[in-house]
Amino acid sequence: MRSATSVEIDPVFVERVVMEFARFGAWGATGVWRTVYSPEWVAAAKQYADWCAEAGLEVHKDAVGNVWGRLRGAEPGPSIVSGSHIDSQRPGGRYDGALGALAGLIAIRALSAQFGPPRRTLEAVALCEEEGSRFPTAQFWGSRAIVGRIAPGDAVATKGYEDETIADAMREVGLDPALIAEARRDDISDFIELHIEQGPILEQAGLPVAVVDAITGIRHLRVTLTGEANHAGAFPMDMRRDPMAGFAEIAAGVVNTAHRMGRPAVTTVGRVIAEPNFPAIVPHTVQFSVDARHPDPAQRDILYARHDALMREVAARRGLEIVIEQSLDHPPCLSDPGLVATFEKAARDQGIAFTTMPSGAGHDSQQMAEIAKVCMIFVRSKDGRSHTPEEFSSIPDIVEGVRVLAAGLHRLAY
Amino acid sequence: MRSATSVEIDPVFVERVVMEFARFGAWGATGVWRTVYSPEWVAAAKQYADWCAEAGLEVHKDAVGNVWGRLRGAEPGPSIVSGSHIDSQRPGGRYDGALGALAGLIAIRALSAQFGPPRRTLEAVALCEEEGSRFPTAQFWGSRAIVGRIAPGDAVATKGYEDETIADAMREVGLDPALIAEARRDDISDFIELHIEQGPILEQAGLPVAVVDAITGIRHLRVTLTGEANHAGAFPMDMRRDPMAGFAEIAAGVVNTAHRMGRPAVTTVGRVIAEPNFPAIVPHTVQFSVDARHPDPAQRDILYARHDALMREVAARRGLEIVIEQSLDHPPCLSDPGLVATFEKAARDQGIAFTTMPSGAGHDSQQMAEIAKVCMIFVRSKDGRSHTPEEFSSIPDIVEGVRVLAAGLHRLAY
Repeated sequence: MRSATSVEIDPVFVERVVMEFARFGAWGATGVWRTVYSPEWVAAAKQYADWCAEAGLEVHKDAVGNVWGRLRGAEPGPSIVSGSHIDSQRPGGRYDGALGALAGLIAIRALSAQFGPPRRTLEAVALCEEEGSRFPTAQFWGSRAIVGRIAPGDAVATKGYEDETIADAMREVGLDPALIAEARRDDISDFIELHIEQGPILEQAGLPVAVVDAITGIRHLRVTLTGEANHAGAFPMDMRRDPMAGFAEIAAGVVNTAHRMGRPAVTTVGRVIAEPNFPAIVPHTVQFSVDARHPDPAQRDILYARHDALMREVAARRGLEIVIEQSLDHPPCLSDPGLVATFEKAARDQGIAFTTMPSGAGHDSQQMAEIAKVCMIFVRSKDGRSHTPEEFSSIPDIVEGVRVLAAGLHRLAY
Repeated sequence: MRSATSVEIDPVFVERVVMEFARFGAWGATGVWRTVYSPEWVAAAKQYADWCAEAGLEVHKDAVGNVWGRLRGAEPGPSIVSGSHIDSQRPGGRYDGALGALAGLIAIRALSAQFGPPRRTLEAVALCEEEGSRFPTAQFWGSRAIVGRIAPGDAVATKGYEDETIADAMREVGLDPALIAEARRDDISDFIELHIEQGPILEQAGLPVAVVDAITGIRHLRVTLTGEANHAGAFPMDMRRDPMAGFAEIAAGVVNTAHRMGRPAVTTVGRVIAEPNFPAIVPHTVQFSVDARHPDPAQRDILYARHDALMREVAARRGLEIVIEQSLDHPPCLSDPGLVATFEKAARDQGIAFTTMPSGAGHDSQQMAEIAKVCMIFVRSKDGRSHTPEEFSSIPDIVEGVRVLAAGLHRLAY
C-alpha cells in the first residue's frame, strides 16, 4: 500500500466556480433554471469547456453536447472519468448535478497542478441532460448516449413540455441528431460521480461526506381502484364498495411496510386522484402512485412483494377492482466494491469523517454502470432539500467532498 | 279511531305524469337536466300548474316560482301540504324531487275525486330549487323562501357556476327578487314529502316504501394536513412528516368508526387533493373532505367527537399541522311523531308492507320543519342509485308510495 498523500483543494477557487456557474440560468437569489439545449445551458457548457481548457485539459464536445476535459495519462488504456449533469430542475438549485461536473474538473485540475501528468488518463465531464426537466422522457440523455442506450428514432420521438422534439432542440444548438451514436464510448474503465446527498442523513449524522455503495432500486406503480359511486348519506357503510377506503388502507399499509423494514427502504404515495371527487359522493375510482425503493436486490424483492400482497388483499376483501400498472422499474445499481474501498481509503487518508450509504435517488452513474465500474461521493445537504432554489451545501463540505474525490482519483490514476 | 278507508291510485295516470314530466329537460334515454329558472324548468312549472288546474285545484305561483295547487277545506285553518322540488342534478334522473311534487298532486287529485272536498285545506307544491345544481349556494331556495330563510341581499350575492346571479336568473323568468319575502308562509301546519330513497335499504329489505322518522344530521369538514415535501428516494421514512400517510390513517379511521357504529351512521371521504401530487415527491399538503351523518342527536355527537379526536391524534403523532374547517352543519331533523304514526297507520290500512327508517340525505322537509310538522315517505330505489340518469323506481312501488301518502292525508284532512 502507498502511504497517504495529502491533496490540496483551494476553497476560494471552489466557491468561485460554483457561484459563477450558478449565474447561467440564475433564478431568483439562489435558484437555477437551466434546461438542456437552452441558451443558459449553451452558455454553461461553453464556460465548462473554457475552464477545462484553462486547466490544461483537452476539450471535446461530443455528439449530444456532453463536454469532456481530458488529462492524458502516460500509459495507454481506458479513462477514469468523473462528472455529472449540468441541466437543472425548473427551477432547481445551484448544486444538483452541476457540483459533480465542477468537482471532476476541480479535482483533475488540482491533481495536474500538484502531481503533474498521471499514469492513467483522467477525464472530467459535464453531462448534458439528466433531469428530464425539458423533455420528460429524456432522463439520462447524456449518459445514455455515452453507453449506447439511445435508439435511432428516439430523438424525433422525444417531445418536450412545449411539444418540440429533442431532435429540433439539438439542431438549434448546432448538434446533429443523426450523429448521436458517435457519442458512444467504450474506453472508460471507471466513473466516479460526486453529488449532493439530496437527503438529511449526513446532516443528521453530523458528517460532511459519504461514499455511496449503491443506487437504490426503484419501482413506480400506477394503481387504479374501482368501486361504486354512491350517495354519501343514503348508502349504508356495510353495503359500500368504497375505493377511497381501500386506498386509505393501502396507502397507510405500504408506508408502514417500508417504515418497519427500516432504512434504506422507502415507499411514497405522492399522487392521488379521486373521481368524481365530491364531498357527498362515495368515489367510484381512486388512482394513485406507489414509489418504492430499496438498494438491496433481495430486500427490494421482499418490499415489492409485501406491497403487492397488501394491495391485492385489500382490494379483494373490499370488493374493489384493482389494476396495477408498472410505469418504472430500475434495478438497484451496486457500486464497484473495489472503488468503494478506494474512496473510503481516500477519505480516511485525508482525515475526513464519512459514512458509507446508498443513494435513494437515481443518478447518471446508473447508466454509466453499463460500460464502467462506478462509485459516487455524496456531500451533505442542508435540511435534505433539493430540486428547489433552497437547496444548499456549504463550501467547506464541498471542499471535503472534492478532496475525497481527488484523493481517490490519485490512488487510481497515479 | 276511524276504520280503514281504501284509497285508489290509478297506475296508468301515475306512469303518464311521471313520464311526461321527465320530458322537460330530458337527457339521453332516462336522464333529466332541469336546473332552476332554465327554459326546461319554466316549462315543467307550467305543466305542473296546468295539471293542478285540471285536477280542480286553485293554482298559485309564488314570488320565487314555487307552484301551489290548493284544494280548499270546509273548515278554516292552516294547510296540510305535500310536495317536493322539480329541479334536477345535471344530469339527474326522472324521480329525485319531481316524484314528490307529482305525488302530492296525484294524491290530492285522487282524494278530491274519491272523497270530495276535505274538511281541512290540502295543498300540493312544486318547490323551485333544492339541488343547488345551477347555484351551488342556493340549496333549498324554494323551501327557504317559504320559511323566511332568504335574507334581503341573498339573491344578488348568490352566484351560479357561470357567474350569473340568481337575481338575474329570476328576472329572466319574470320573477322580481325584491319580492322574495312575499313567498313566506305562516299558514302551513303539516308538510309531507314523498321522495325516492336514493339508497339500497328498501331494496335489500324487499319493501316498496318507508315512513321516514328523521332526516340525518350532517357535517361537512374540509381538513388540511400540512407536512414537509421531500424527495421520495433520499428522505428516510423515520424523518418524514408525510401528510399523505396521515391522511390515509385518518380516512381509514373515520370510515371504520362509522362502520363499527353501524346503521344509520355513515362517514364518507369523497374528496382529496394532494400537493404537489407527483409520484416521486412526498406531498407537503393533503386536503380532504369528511362527510359524517347520523339522525340521532346523541349518537351524532359521539360520531363527530370520535372523528375529531382521531384526526387530532394522528396529526399530533405524525408532526403534521391540521386545519379543520366546517363547511356545513345541519342538525338532525326529526319527523313529527304524530305524523309518523299517522302514515304508519295509513300504510297498514292499505295493506302495504313498509319499514320506518331515517333519511341519510337532506331534503326540503328540513327547511319546512321550521314552520310545520314534517314527515316523509320513501319509495324503493333500484340499486340505491340516484343523482344519475340510471336512477329508477318502478310504477308499482310509486303507486304504493302515493297510496300511503293519500291515505295519510285522508286521515289528516277528512
